[in-house]
Amino acid sequence: MPSLLDEFSAEMLPAVEQEMHAALDDGFPVQFGFMHSMLAYHLGWQETPNGRSVKGKRIRPLIVLLSALAVGGDWRPALPAAAAVEFLHNFSLIHDDIEDRGEFRHGRPALWKKEGMAQAINAGDALFSVAFLTLQRLAAPVSAEAVRAVYRVLGTACLNLTGGQSLDLDFEVANDIDIQDYETMIEGKTAALMSAAAEIGALLGGGDAEVRSALAHFGHNMGLAFQTQDDLLGIWGETAATGKSAESDLVTGKKSLPVIYALRHSAEFKKRWNSGPILVEEVSRIVTDLDQIGAKDYTQRQTDTFTQKALDYILYLPQENKAVVALKSLAENLTRRRA
Amino acid sequence: MPSLLDEFSAEMLPAVEQEMHAALDDGFPVQFGFMHSMLAYHLGWQETPNGRSVKGKRIRPLIVLLSALAVGGDWRPALPAAAAVEFLHNFSLIHDDIEDRGEFRHGRPALWKKEGMAQAINAGDALFSVAFLTLQRLAAPVSAEAVRAVYRVLGTACLNLTGGQSLDLDFEVANDIDIQDYETMIEGKTAALMSAAAEIGALLGGGDAEVRSALAHFGHNMGLAFQTQDDLLGIWGETAATGKSAESDLVTGKKSLPVIYALRHSAEFKKRWNSGPILVEEVSRIVTDLDQIGAKDYTQRQTDTFTQKALDYILYLPQENKAVVALKSLAENLTRRRA
Repeated sequence: MPSLLDEFSAEMLPAVEQEMHAALDDGFPVQFGFMHSMLAYHLGWQETPNGRSVKGKRIRPLIVLLSALAVGGDWRPALPAAAAVEFLHNFSLIHDDIEDRGEFRHGRPALWKKEGMAQAINAGDALFSVAFLTLQRLAAPVSAEAVRAVYRVLGTACLNLTGGQSLDLDFEVANDIDIQDYETMIEGKTAALMSAAAEIGALLGGGDAEVRSALAHFGHNMGLAFQTQDDLLGIWGETAATGKSAESDLVTGKKSLPVIYALRHSAEFKKRWNSGPILVEEVSRIVTDLDQIGAKDYTQRQTDTFTQKALDYILYLPQENKAVVALKSLAENLTRRRA
Repeated sequence: MPSLLDEFSAEMLPAVEQEMHAALDDGFPVQFGFMHSMLAYHLGWQETPNGRSVKGKRIRPLIVLLSALAVGGDWRPALPAAAAVEFLHNFSLIHDDIEDRGEFRHGRPALWKKEGMAQAINAGDALFSVAFLTLQRLAAPVSAEAVRAVYRVLGTACLNLTGGQSLDLDFEVANDIDIQDYETMIEGKTAALMSAAAEIGALLGGGDAEVRSALAHFGHNMGLAFQTQDDLLGIWGETAATGKSAESDLVTGKKSLPVIYALRHSAEFKKRWNSGPILVEEVSRIVTDLDQIGAKDYTQRQTDTFTQKALDYILYLPQENKAVVALKSLAENLTRRRA
């Protein structure tokens, strides 16, 4: 039997995709056709030889739409905001791949590997522009004041997103990162946009200040849980499920939560980490070491704590309706995911 | 005797700088202090050893404010929009320097040379976010509908800006660019934001649709003139005045307007251009050749034509006030500039 979340997804996600197409395709300046093709490639809209989906999971638009429903509003008027949030997420992916030298995205060459760095930086900027333009599609019953508020929430989220990314880039070269630094970083890099997605949904659904705040905190904590789980999967995930080497975070030297924990709890690990890049053939031994010092358990506990916090904020909502149930499932599923 | 333009500049530019500071500094997330310092560096707010100004000329905010006055409105309520336009211009400079491998900006190392490419891409994104957030500072008497319209005009300008930049990057490798291709490119890359600046000023000054359109066309043509003049200075400008080697556009291989003209009018130039990078010691001879085939005259005529078109659109304004006179001076000065 399909869950409520599955049912909502089946109804909403095609509408999101349609809205994204309408926002990006309709009236796109014809003289910039190459730009459009770059964005279509990144968004997974171009056919792949094997017909496999290369789209993202579109989690953030789902958060927007479910939040609008959760506070008792309609979801369809919020579609442009859902599309805008997904465009922003994808703009950040295009640039992150360049900044982190990530060569693949959804199993295909990242945009910068395909079209070069200069074009890809600029294509990311174009998608940023498209995202903000997409909010112009918000129409009655959404008021001009509400549109202005959505711009404020999204603009703030983008500033925090880039702030978090700046810290993450800094971590690559910094020593002695503590858990608090890490949390500050992921609050920007991952939680800000998820929080904005939930808050915007609540806003467009007509929620009052308290409800908007509750859903913003829900999204924030779900974002934190999403990231710590991502960090766990970066070391313990199944290669096949993640679409990349399960051990890649150790090999690429990413200072993810388990690594930060281990650097503080194992002198042996710290010594090895600081002496140079970890080789593929060392990975399985080091993973065992990380298990033994409790790095996996710690990361899992963090995810559970953030998820529970997210669910606690749901209790502030005035009602329990189907969308509320689906939002809770979404938070729980993100934590349980294996990819 | 100071011109009207000088008088307006003396009054408005300090207010623009103050507004930019307020928008960027007040409430900037303290945890992202490094990000703030990168933006302050790029914006020329950090002291230089020799005390020389490293700020830009802030032409675009001036266009916003003068346009608001020109249509009979006040300029002070438009200050946040003026600041936002300048932030957007600077975001594009940060990214352009990376994409074009420009190592210097205002005589100092470009941000990416100072802080690395990854941090600089991300800092540009942060400034993009700040620009859109700054529009939230628009307050009464500006209505929520007007704010929404400003977001639309600026978002459209950004999409065209990135589209133009994409074409410009493509020109580096493309053959057989004609004048029409070039004009399409600079319509996006340079004219879009100047057009938006004038249109937004007219909008916030309370101008009707006809007046807004006239000022948008004014800004558009002024932007085209600005770019063709820039292209001329890239080859014929005085080294000292431009702050870079006067011959650099020939040496860097930039397909500017004089080069595009010469490729179509001189088989000899075309042969030399296609056989590899032009060396510094060849420059003076090639500049003489360009003079002889009329490349400089042609470029100058284009600038004059665009400037005249810009001035013609001013005639659609219902009144001639001091701000209108100053706008005309601004357009004429941009054409006559030597740097």
